[in-house]
Amino acid sequence: MIILGIDPGYATVGFGVIETINGRNKAVEYGVILTPKEDSLPKRLAKIAEGFDQLIEKYHPDAVAIEELFFQNNQKTAILVAEARGAILLTVYGKVKNLYEYTPLQIKQAMTGYGRADKKQIQQMVTTYLNLKSIPKPDDAADALAVALTHAQTNRLAGLFGI
Amino acid sequence: MIILGIDPGYATVGFGVIETINGRNKAVEYGVILTPKEDSLPKRLAKIAEGFDQLIEKYHPDAVAIEELFFQNNQKTAILVAEARGAILLTVYGKVKNLYEYTPLQIKQAMTGYGRADKKQIQQMVTTYLNLKSIPKPDDAADALAVALTHAQTNRLAGLFGI
Repeated sequence: MIILGIDPGYATVGFGVIETINGRNKAVEYGVILTPKEDSLPKRLAKIAEGFDQLIEKYHPDAVAIEELFFQNNQKTAILVAEARGAILLTVYGKVKNLYEYTPLQIKQAMTGYGRADKKQIQQMVTTYLNLKSIPKPDDAADALAVALTHAQTNRLAGLFGI
Repeated sequence: MIILGIDPGYATVGFGVIETINGRNKAVEYGVILTPKEDSLPKRLAKIAEGFDQLIEKYHPDAVAIEELFFQNNQKTAILVAEARGAILLTVYGKVKNLYEYTPLQIKQAMTGYGRADKKQIQQMVTTYLNLKSIPKPDDAADALAVALTHAQTNRLAGLFGI
């Protein structure tokens, strides 16, 4: 099963494609989509959409997992990230119906077993689960891989327990 | 010139299509796109996008004007509206490059000449400018017409002053 994980953003959008076979996970591709600050928001959203169009075209993921937004202190940033997330949801939903959303808490719990793990611990677990030599960079890509792994984990448990 | 005005939302999205000829404005069509509460957010976004696809297909607007988000007290609502707005921007931008954003303050100023007008006053002005018999309903449709009129007004002034 191919899973595309997404860490939403408007300037930097993290993505991580993993392959899951019999409970073992392998990183296929990860990275970030960057949008230039000098472009208008609609143009930036179009660039993000284009990036995901290409990734979906390339990997035909069986499922897409995207992080839910955590309410931030900076409302202006939160609004922009939410706008980007809406554009991403629309783009993905048009192509992959298996679209799952996970809260930051669910991701922490899936990755480390408890809800108070810090970013560094999650990145360590991503590295371990995917058997990588070092922590994936940049952070947004590592976060996206964590979302993909959360779905792999949740999906596997659901399968084990026949949910 | 045909202008499509949009009042962004996720449950109720207002739209208003006006035609502007020599500084005179006429309502062509207005209303709301509704999305069912029981549907997932991606599905609701897809429905909104489909609605705007059809409106653009039908009227081929020369310009689209959309309201910018005002930071609300209810962060959860603000995030959802922003997600819908991002999906709308992406949809529109793919088809109409003349996409303009106006803040609530700009709309108030364009419609009533000052920034502290209330909703009712703006709706009265929409009714007057479009020579309608009564205030357009529902409110979201009236708001969308106000955005379209704001663009007509701004565009006309820019033309007069050679901006």
